[in-house]
Amino acid sequence: MDLKEHITTIPNWPKKGIMFRDVTTLLQSPEAFQYAVERLADFGRKVKATVVAGPEARGFIFGAPVAAKLGVGFVPVRKPGKLPRAVITENYDLEYGSNTLCIHEDAFSPFDRVLVIDDLLATGGTALATAHLIEKSGAAVAGLGFVIDLVDLKGKDLLKDYTVETLCEYEGE
Amino acid sequence: MDLKEHITTIPNWPKKGIMFRDVTTLLQSPEAFQYAVERLADFGRKVKATVVAGPEARGFIFGAPVAAKLGVGFVPVRKPGKLPRAVITENYDLEYGSNTLCIHEDAFSPFDRVLVIDDLLATGGTALATAHLIEKSGAAVAGLGFVIDLVDLKGKDLLKDYTVETLCEYEGE
Repeated sequence: MDLKEHITTIPNWPKKGIMFRDVTTLLQSPEAFQYAVERLADFGRKVKATVVAGPEARGFIFGAPVAAKLGVGFVPVRKPGKLPRAVITENYDLEYGSNTLCIHEDAFSPFDRVLVIDDLLATGGTALATAHLIEKSGAAVAGLGFVIDLVDLKGKDLLKDYTVETLCEYEGE
Repeated sequence: MDLKEHITTIPNWPKKGIMFRDVTTLLQSPEAFQYAVERLADFGRKVKATVVAGPEARGFIFGAPVAAKLGVGFVPVRKPGKLPRAVITENYDLEYGSNTLCIHEDAFSPFDRVLVIDDLLATGGTALATAHLIEKSGAAVAGLGFVIDLVDLKGKDLLKDYTVETLCEYEGE
């Protein structure tokens, strides 16, 4: 299946010059949604994942079904102020400003091999911060899986120390 | 399975007097997470749902796996500024201030029977606004399913015109 047939491109959103890749049309297709979840779960089996983590909020939409498919737990990676118990945090820089991600201190066991799932790999900043959070907690990153790779932004270079899977690519378009 | 054994109660969070029910420990248990998704999917089959909708952000964590389990599509119900195409919006009042929810205009077909999934039923305001959005779009609300019911807040009364399922209840505690 060509997932790109189910992804809508919105030019100049959220600002001029950005080609936004909208996965809501993929989610509306039962076949495309199922296919994406199955493919990411296959990757999780290959890397022997014991748990799935997904960054807020679109990472939840693919990460949680992948966890359910694998029969493992799911850990939401959240923005500050959303998790009620003691957290580990990681700050990272954006083009303008910075961002912070959090997980509960007890989110993973030291034996966990964590599969990180998100909808889209752009520069890889959010994914790398998530990988660092997992390592700070004492668990291992089994791999990182994404539905979309915006190849021109070289996210795979930033994540070169990890096993990465992407289901479809946009390059020079 | 008693799901309450997997839910953590945090007293006085996010503010004094609130008993916060934290589902992250439920999500960390593969058995409890699977059980919750299966039970909500059973409800979806009973009400003949053709698609699942979940409000941002915890609604994504249970709604998306329920959609994948049922083999139907998933529609994220989002806060303003997150969806790139033309939207339908619904405003509703909170204790202090108000909130707005959005879906894409083409999220549902007129023949859709929509299952709304969220982690927690409190006053029911978010759920009722989601139901109104679905009806504005021309689709039907098949039912609303929640993991937790905070019985004292009488959310089921506010949703009395709909079929509602909850998996566990907190009352007077």
